[in-house]
Amino acid sequence: MVGGGRGAFIGAVHRIAANIDGQIELVCGAFSSDPERSKASGADFFLPANRCYGTFEEMIKAEAKLPEGERMDFVSIVTPNHMHFPPAKMALENGFHVLSDKPATLNLAEAKKLGDIVKKTGQLYGLTHNYTGYPLVKEAKAMIAAGKLGKIRKVVVEYPQGWLATRIEASGQKQAAWRTDPKRSGAAGCIGDIGTHAENLAEYITGLEIEELAADISTFVKGRALDDDGNVLLRFKGGAKGVLHSSQISVGEENNLNIRVYGELGGIEWHQKEPNTMLVKWLDQPMQVYRTANGYLSDAAKAAGRTPPAHPEGYLEAFANIYKNFATHIRAVQAGKKLPKNDLALDYPKISDGIRGMAFIEAVVKSSRGNAKWTKLKV
Amino acid sequence: MVGGGRGAFIGAVHRIAANIDGQIELVCGAFSSDPERSKASGADFFLPANRCYGTFEEMIKAEAKLPEGERMDFVSIVTPNHMHFPPAKMALENGFHVLSDKPATLNLAEAKKLGDIVKKTGQLYGLTHNYTGYPLVKEAKAMIAAGKLGKIRKVVVEYPQGWLATRIEASGQKQAAWRTDPKRSGAAGCIGDIGTHAENLAEYITGLEIEELAADISTFVKGRALDDDGNVLLRFKGGAKGVLHSSQISVGEENNLNIRVYGELGGIEWHQKEPNTMLVKWLDQPMQVYRTANGYLSDAAKAAGRTPPAHPEGYLEAFANIYKNFATHIRAVQAGKKLPKNDLALDYPKISDGIRGMAFIEAVVKSSRGNAKWTKLKV
Amino acid sequence: MVGGGRGAFIGAVHRIAANIDGQIELVCGAFSSDPERSKASGADFFLPANRCYGTFEEMIKAEAKLPEGERMDFVSIVTPNHMHFPPAKMALENGFHVLSDKPATLNLAEAKKLGDIVKKTGQLYGLTHNYTGYPLVKEAKAMIAAGKLGKIRKVVVEYPQGWLATRIEASGQKQAAWRTDPKRSGAAGCIGDIGTHAENLAEYITGLEIEELAADISTFVKGRALDDDGNVLLRFKGGAKGVLHSSQISVGEENNLNIRVYGELGGIEWHQKEPNTMLVKWLDQPMQVYRTANGYLSDAAKAAGRTPPAHPEGYLEAFANIYKNFATHIRAVQAGKKLPKNDLALDYPKISDGIRGMAFIEAVVKSSRGNAKWTKLKV
Amino acid sequence: MVGGGRGAFIGAVHRIAANIDGQIELVCGAFSSDPERSKASGADFFLPANRCYGTFEEMIKAEAKLPEGERMDFVSIVTPNHMHFPPAKMALENGFHVLSDKPATLNLAEAKKLGDIVKKTGQLYGLTHNYTGYPLVKEAKAMIAAGKLGKIRKVVVEYPQGWLATRIEASGQKQAAWRTDPKRSGAAGCIGDIGTHAENLAEYITGLEIEELAADISTFVKGRALDDDGNVLLRFKGGAKGVLHSSQISVGEENNLNIRVYGELGGIEWHQKEPNTMLVKWLDQPMQVYRTANGYLSDAAKAAGRTPPAHPEGYLEAFANIYKNFATHIRAVQAGKKLPKNDLALDYPKISDGIRGMAFIEAVVKSSRGNAKWTKLKV
Repeated sequence: MVGGGRGAFIGAVHRIAANIDGQIELVCGAFSSDPERSKASGADFFLPANRCYGTFEEMIKAEAKLPEGERMDFVSIVTPNHMHFPPAKMALENGFHVLSDKPATLNLAEAKKLGDIVKKTGQLYGLTHNYTGYPLVKEAKAMIAAGKLGKIRKVVVEYPQGWLATRIEASGQKQAAWRTDPKRSGAAGCIGDIGTHAENLAEYITGLEIEELAADISTFVKGRALDDDGNVLLRFKGGAKGVLHSSQISVGEENNLNIRVYGELGGIEWHQKEPNTMLVKWLDQPMQVYRTANGYLSDAAKAAGRTPPAHPEGYLEAFANIYKNFATHIRAVQAGKKLPKNDLALDYPKISDGIRGMAFIEAVVKSSRGNAKWTKLKV
Repeated sequence: MVGGGRGAFIGAVHRIAANIDGQIELVCGAFSSDPERSKASGADFFLPANRCYGTFEEMIKAEAKLPEGERMDFVSIVTPNHMHFPPAKMALENGFHVLSDKPATLNLAEAKKLGDIVKKTGQLYGLTHNYTGYPLVKEAKAMIAAGKLGKIRKVVVEYPQGWLATRIEASGQKQAAWRTDPKRSGAAGCIGDIGTHAENLAEYITGLEIEELAADISTFVKGRALDDDGNVLLRFKGGAKGVLHSSQISVGEENNLNIRVYGELGGIEWHQKEPNTMLVKWLDQPMQVYRTANGYLSDAAKAAGRTPPAHPEGYLEAFANIYKNFATHIRAVQAGKKLPKNDLALDYPKISDGIRGMAFIEAVVKSSRGNAKWTKLKV
Repeated sequence: MVGGGRGAFIGAVHRIAANIDGQIELVCGAFSSDPERSKASGADFFLPANRCYGTFEEMIKAEAKLPEGERMDFVSIVTPNHMHFPPAKMALENGFHVLSDKPATLNLAEAKKLGDIVKKTGQLYGLTHNYTGYPLVKEAKAMIAAGKLGKIRKVVVEYPQGWLATRIEASGQKQAAWRTDPKRSGAAGCIGDIGTHAENLAEYITGLEIEELAADISTFVKGRALDDDGNVLLRFKGGAKGVLHSSQISVGEENNLNIRVYGELGGIEWHQKEPNTMLVKWLDQPMQVYRTANGYLSDAAKAAGRTPPAHPEGYLEAFANIYKNFATHIRAVQAGKKLPKNDLALDYPKISDGIRGMAFIEAVVKSSRGNAKWTKLKV
Repeated sequence: MVGGGRGAFIGAVHRIAANIDGQIELVCGAFSSDPERSKASGADFFLPANRCYGTFEEMIKAEAKLPEGERMDFVSIVTPNHMHFPPAKMALENGFHVLSDKPATLNLAEAKKLGDIVKKTGQLYGLTHNYTGYPLVKEAKAMIAAGKLGKIRKVVVEYPQGWLATRIEASGQKQAAWRTDPKRSGAAGCIGDIGTHAENLAEYITGLEIEELAADISTFVKGRALDDDGNVLLRFKGGAKGVLHSSQISVGEENNLNIRVYGELGGIEWHQKEPNTMLVKWLDQPMQVYRTANGYLSDAAKAAGRTPPAHPEGYLEAFANIYKNFATHIRAVQAGKKLPKNDLALDYPKISDGIRGMAFIEAVVKSSRGNAKWTKLKV
């Protein structure tokens, strides 16, 4: 693991996600750029001091020298955005698979470069667009792929939060500090941090690609360098239209990612804050309420659950589904087995999603600078 | 009443709204352009045949000749859009007050003309933007006016329906037929029929005016002449931003008008389909659930309720609030009394709202033709 | 109308319910036992002074002398419970139909006597168990009658309120004062005022009769003479079991009548506070959400709606459905027409429901005094 | 671990719950009474064959001989009910702490015996009444303990399920088979399996003890030996009253444990199926919506969360909180440290809860046999 020492948020999430299924063991880490802090963090996780490294470079070099079976199998990257590309590149080039937090890189150019490296090295690369790990998100995708909603016409995807409604980055809140700093976060704030999750979710569920967009992003909190709110009109390949908006200043909203998709025959609605429920809407028939873990769900949705109906599953389990699939894929590769194209274990976000995410961010920023001019995603 | 004979939808709604409080009596009508049908409809409402007219012209002339106290006090106009302006004009010019269904007229030019007539004649003019009649909509307005949410930053207003997801106008559905016909409906379909309600609600609640917008409207159902879906970016005077979208092809949505407003200190969320509940969101405090008819509400919200808490009030009662206030205002005028500026009876939509609505429609159509170019509302 | 003068709650509800459909006109009343107050109240409703009477006796005598076509057609009784029986008896015996607020009488003996009078006079008698007027309550009844849920096994019906959680009757609140006074309210407080609504709803929807019950009622607020909370085990004829509880001390509950019914094949769930939604549950299939006014509903449910889907209907419209059916039945009788047994206009609560309600109250009180001993309903 | 081999449900839940926080490692097990099956199951969890035992007796003996630091620290018991007592007894008497699935034993006599053994050995004993692990359940408890709701008057606690609405035990469903078998499940079916969770939740949250109850339990599915539905009136020490009902034949209900508590000043409502939301109700003030992980929560509720607001936590995390606290307590004991009485790590269910649960089951069965006679809990 790179990053995720004491005090970090997403590192703890990654560790729980890796732990849940008892299939993955944390064996080493460069948890902090401060070697002492890295060792102290590692001790919290019951790691021996010699596998707690001061830098990712040190870690990758040292682990590469260990015998097979003992050295780490893959690297989790859980640092701020500007530190995603360097360890990913080095790990891949030294024969390690990589599971990275999103966004893949700091900008589109880096993401494309990373795409080439993944291709060249043949190593596996996964990206924790974790919301795609929810069972009912997989159900929505399966329903649409099976044509149950008919041709898709309209998509509304939202990701409102309220935690940055005041300038908490000025008071030393660490999570807020790097997310509002262009050097560590990239060209966009809100759109990069959570807008990309909305974009990824919309494309994952519908199977459609955003072709062009018209964006109006804003910075409402004085003194902030990056956007904290964004409203975007979408046009998908094939004719569907949509609206995407994300916000960090929507007071009282927690983490309210949600999506509605309407086709010619039906529609779906899903909210991350009650993730075990999905509304399914029909022409002239009563709305249905799909719930996680029931027998009527698709194989993909059923495989993503761990408990019977109404033992609510949450964010950590969805996150763990990315880890589980990634680990299963690695095992297949290690065993020299090629998984069939429709194997459920292949259902995790990859570098191609990372590239589209960066293209989305750059298109939004460019469109907004052009006063909401229609701008194509360039992948 | 002009229009609203057998088979009409909104005419029946107006009659119930007028009946509810026992303050208004239907005394005459030109319910249909067919005199026989007009008389038959009138008989359903226990009207004598001599006050069931074949045309609105006939009605206005005949009623004007009746002695005061016997003749009608005001005219309700419940015809399709293209027939709003002519009877409104004639009624006002013959000394009758007018309560018209929305939109005020077929286009902006007519609306401005009507504004001049209202001014010149000094008669009262009300417009049934009925959603502003809900008690909790009035509460939202009162909270924002009192500064409880702080400066407003973001508005999300939606009006999705699904009833025109297929081409039902081709199969003789009367309501669908005129709404999808530019000659009777005007320059916009979905945006004119329901988008204007969303626009009106957003401006009513926030007290802010939309300054400019960027719109992308679509016609998804083949063979339809007018838009059946629209996505709009909003910029309000004073710096707030927003999103408005309305749709008639969102399969499975009934009449799902809803709004969220976020200020620097708090936010509100209200859905027409459960109109007796409003969510109130705060920085660092639990969300509150406001409910109709409780003692903690503002005077405006309390005055708009008829029953104790949790005796749910609905669409008809909200509609009736427009009628009640309009009737109270007429009575004051008839009694030669001038109501103070903040009198709650003055809280009903007026010709100025009608003009803004038409300006909104024309701006959306123009922006969309210019590929979502930012376009100002010209009032 | 008997009762319902200035300051009354339920009188105003009855008047609105009667007004809504424009089929019923208020022509006279004994609105108060104070003749001046009665006249003043009548003037609020635009009634001439000579038809505002000081007592119900005076009213019934005077109206009986008026020529047919001019005299009142039926009497609405909206007084406190102890004043239900006397005017009902006299009106029926003088040839007037009666629509009474619930409960039918002050005790079971009176109710049975009233049943005999109704039978003997042949006049119509209706009772405003208004919650049966909701469209989706009628849908639930229709679904169960059609066998869609299979044999019914379990019923859970609740009616919690919180408005009597403190002793507001001591501070002069008029509604609280008579409801907590055994002389005006009867043998039970909470169970009589709202428990009977729950009982009536459960029997109406399921078509099953409560056979016996075991009750534990309580008075939580010190100094109060009647129960303010009650928990009851139910056994229905045919083997279904159930729970009924009602409360006036459940702080924060408004008027939260709700019911769940489970059969061998499916279940339904309905809440009065969101009355346009009903959940329908199935073995191994997704739950469905039924909504008022949709095409997939039964004829009974459709006939009970006045507006298209998602124009929410509320308490007053449900109440008005009792009035509408009662008025339609009266008209048929006046026209000498016998309605077929399954005519929807016959679907309003009658004296038999009133007798069962009183039997329920007496059984609950008796069982609770016997320390929750199983007690049969004696009708 | 005793039990929980391939095909078991609750064993997998326990393992995930133990894994989540990276503080507990599965080191050995008697996963099945079939030694081969036990070894095969252990291999799934990456255990060496020599620590996969054929019986719990074998396991406890062998592990007791291993050197400290290597041998297991505590035993998880995840077998059907009749196999809870024997391994618990033996483990405790051989110096191992025990964390057992509920109910503690097969009957009250065994439970009391186990209580004595716990006392005598001084080992720690925990019981997975897992629903008390939810952050908002802890918040409810903390609010009531702090007196915010005032003196408690009424409790409504429900646990409806629908999975046993048909006789699936006859078709070989393993989970259904043992739960409907008196030899393996005990004196009660539905009441034992889930009614005890409801009882435990009510006592945990309110801090009140059920004094006596009147129960009516039923077996609706023909051929079933144990109850599949139960309705119970409750009286708490101190005067509060309540209703508890649980069901396995409530078609369409998943696992819908929920509770409402009303005091003199306020009330709370919590539903396990949306566990991150709790409604808090007040006299004359708007209802509040408490959500997991927010800053306004009590320390106990905050300590029980792992992620920021609106990263929904679920069943597995709540379950893991029992494991986490139990493990923390063991560590303190091992370190010779005595935790202060209000230490949050002591907040897990203990043998006293197990004894009360068994007393509840026996009281329900006895009361129901006595036709809902009031019966005291004898602990």
